[in-house]
Amino acid sequence: MFEKIIKNVKEQNPLVHCITNSVTMNDCANALLAVHGSPIMADEQQEVEDITSICQALVINIGTLNERTVEAMIKAGKKANELGHPVVLDPVGAGASQFRTETTFRLLKEVKLSVIRGNISEMKTVYSGTGTTKGVDADINDIVSDDNLMQTISFAKELSQKTEAIIVITGPIDIITDSKNTYIIKNGCPEMSQITGTGCMLSAILGAYIAVNQDNLLDAVSCAVAIMGYSGELAKQKIVKENSGTGSLRVYLIDALSMMNSQLLNGGIQIEKR
Amino acid sequence: MFEKIIKNVKEQNPLVHCITNSVTMNDCANALLAVHGSPIMADEQQEVEDITSICQALVINIGTLNERTVEAMIKAGKKANELGHPVVLDPVGAGASQFRTETTFRLLKEVKLSVIRGNISEMKTVYSGTGTTKGVDADINDIVSDDNLMQTISFAKELSQKTEAIIVITGPIDIITDSKNTYIIKNGCPEMSQITGTGCMLSAILGAYIAVNQDNLLDAVSCAVAIMGYSGELAKQKIVKENSGTGSLRVYLIDALSMMNSQLLNGGIQIEKR
Amino acid sequence: MFEKIIKNVKEQNPLVHCITNSVTMNDCANALLAVHGSPIMADEQQEVEDITSICQALVINIGTLNERTVEAMIKAGKKANELGHPVVLDPVGAGASQFRTETTFRLLKEVKLSVIRGNISEMKTVYSGTGTTKGVDADINDIVSDDNLMQTISFAKELSQKTEAIIVITGPIDIITDSKNTYIIKNGCPEMSQITGTGCMLSAILGAYIAVNQDNLLDAVSCAVAIMGYSGELAKQKIVKENSGTGSLRVYLIDALSMMNSQLLNGGIQIEKR
Repeated sequence: MFEKIIKNVKEQNPLVHCITNSVTMNDCANALLAVHGSPIMADEQQEVEDITSICQALVINIGTLNERTVEAMIKAGKKANELGHPVVLDPVGAGASQFRTETTFRLLKEVKLSVIRGNISEMKTVYSGTGTTKGVDADINDIVSDDNLMQTISFAKELSQKTEAIIVITGPIDIITDSKNTYIIKNGCPEMSQITGTGCMLSAILGAYIAVNQDNLLDAVSCAVAIMGYSGELAKQKIVKENSGTGSLRVYLIDALSMMNSQLLNGGIQIEKR
Repeated sequence: MFEKIIKNVKEQNPLVHCITNSVTMNDCANALLAVHGSPIMADEQQEVEDITSICQALVINIGTLNERTVEAMIKAGKKANELGHPVVLDPVGAGASQFRTETTFRLLKEVKLSVIRGNISEMKTVYSGTGTTKGVDADINDIVSDDNLMQTISFAKELSQKTEAIIVITGPIDIITDSKNTYIIKNGCPEMSQITGTGCMLSAILGAYIAVNQDNLLDAVSCAVAIMGYSGELAKQKIVKENSGTGSLRVYLIDALSMMNSQLLNGGIQIEKR
Repeated sequence: MFEKIIKNVKEQNPLVHCITNSVTMNDCANALLAVHGSPIMADEQQEVEDITSICQALVINIGTLNERTVEAMIKAGKKANELGHPVVLDPVGAGASQFRTETTFRLLKEVKLSVIRGNISEMKTVYSGTGTTKGVDADINDIVSDDNLMQTISFAKELSQKTEAIIVITGPIDIITDSKNTYIIKNGCPEMSQITGTGCMLSAILGAYIAVNQDNLLDAVSCAVAIMGYSGELAKQKIVKENSGTGSLRVYLIDALSMMNSQLLNGGIQIEKR
């Protein structure tokens, strides 16, 4: 599965404008290059409209946000909307500070988003910004497991409906939904959270995948999620074999991303459609 | 030795707020994750108080400082003080520009620091900001060696007394003192200075170690210093064996940090209490 | 060839002030350290004059520029000129936004540059800022090949004359000229463009090479270009042998830079003087 989706990225090398955090900016650029996308990082208000205009997708990641870059995010988001470019939001740390939460709400309100990707805790904050009065179901725990999977899927679907965006909740089990159809992906490994940036890299890659697969967004998003998860597993296999640590894991993750193809992916993907 | 100190970090995974430079931010995050701490990088005035409130320690590194981030450092430092969180200062490049020197002095004055870590040259600048009129002893050379060790220890003790902080002077020989007790550590290797960020990573890790070992700060700090030094040695052994270079050294340093445990450390630690 | 040039860098460890982009800042620092230079990154207006004063060269890279850092670039550039320090400009993305193009023009006008390095597309934008009314020859394609080599050399020479800087156009074939003499270098491999920062790292290294070889600038620049290209080839050989990907390529590139010497370089350099 996903042959065509991967092929489109490899052949069209989409240019992705990233307004992303300074911790993982280099990782995001290398991850995008590894999957045959092409990154441009630019966060100055004066140039974001020009930059986003020459790109095919925009990725907004709010980690290490500041007053200057928040305005750039809004400006770039509006321009991308105007041009019909898909926009990915990664609400890093939404809920951890009022500034991040309010910035998330502002982005939800002022920019039409195609995909929102975060962990369950960030996504609950996103939910609280959709104007709902219901409050998040207490059954939605902060770790998605088989026990609370059904509730979390319902939550994701509702959030997708409210935001009109594809929702990606990542964790031990990844949930991807456009409110009608849902994919469950069980790739990845706990070691991925011992290096910084795996979530940010996924969000960056999502930009490339949706840029050139606009007729099939849910599959494109799910494919990118599976690629990141399975690349993490391959990287882990290598460090276990070599008895090395998390420095090597980070290197091998990018290695795996750069060597991924649909045949390899189909040998390891753990996906289920609901 | 240090079993309990290492165990506390591995079991409690302390959340560390880092306001750090943009050159080594990613290295600091990965180093913290490698030792089982958990990093949050945030340097916007509007959110630093919120962020530091949910953390257990604050690390302030003045490399690539700017007007905006200096105010964030002060604000976060005061909030951490208010909450009783330990604060680490890494005065990167103090003395290299008036702005860095003045920022160092301002932090010394406005924030209560638990640990200050730097090379001897940076620490002499710190000393000049303590209001002393004596001037730094001319015998304090810019490289700590066996010849000037006694003078440098005296200097460190005096600086510790003046600042009421644990002083860590790193170099070929590392000195850690709380003015009463002093550890001398001879781990590490010259190759560590051929990659950027080893000092910054150590300062970041110090945040995690003191966060969960507040009843035993001097040992916690010394343990972290020894871990960084010995990890560097292990990384060097690997590149010598493989005949590889400094790119690999950086990867293997993080590997070693992530695989360190008290048994391994005790096999290589070169420490002396005075 | 180039023995003396490499020796000067290795023995004098020039301190290089970099105002560079946040994506590849860490790579630039590690690349500089790998060739035995010494990096200082600082982009705050308040300190750039102090910092550049203690360095031997200044490298200005406009990727991820913002209003604050542009002023710092100008200020540092003028100070470096005043002190007679060589200045390298890397006009990353010139032409991609009006802000980058105007900043490039402003730097050309207000700062005396020793070296300008970019890809052909960036260099055409630089050319348009030299006040020429002729327009860039349509024969100058965006990829330098054997077919359009002669035209591109003429273009580079003219640009060198207009800017009074050494011009470095990098691509499958690298052209280095001071308007009178020209080197053509065919080292490097396409895989280098699958990792971020190879151009930025080269520009950073150029700073170290020209800092200590001011009596022989064209050779110093050409030597650095050859070292980066051949290091890329060595890194590629290693990933092909190991069947690894672009994460490893990035590590091995820094490895190769750190292990390079004139004997090794002379075994692989593909250079031609015209």
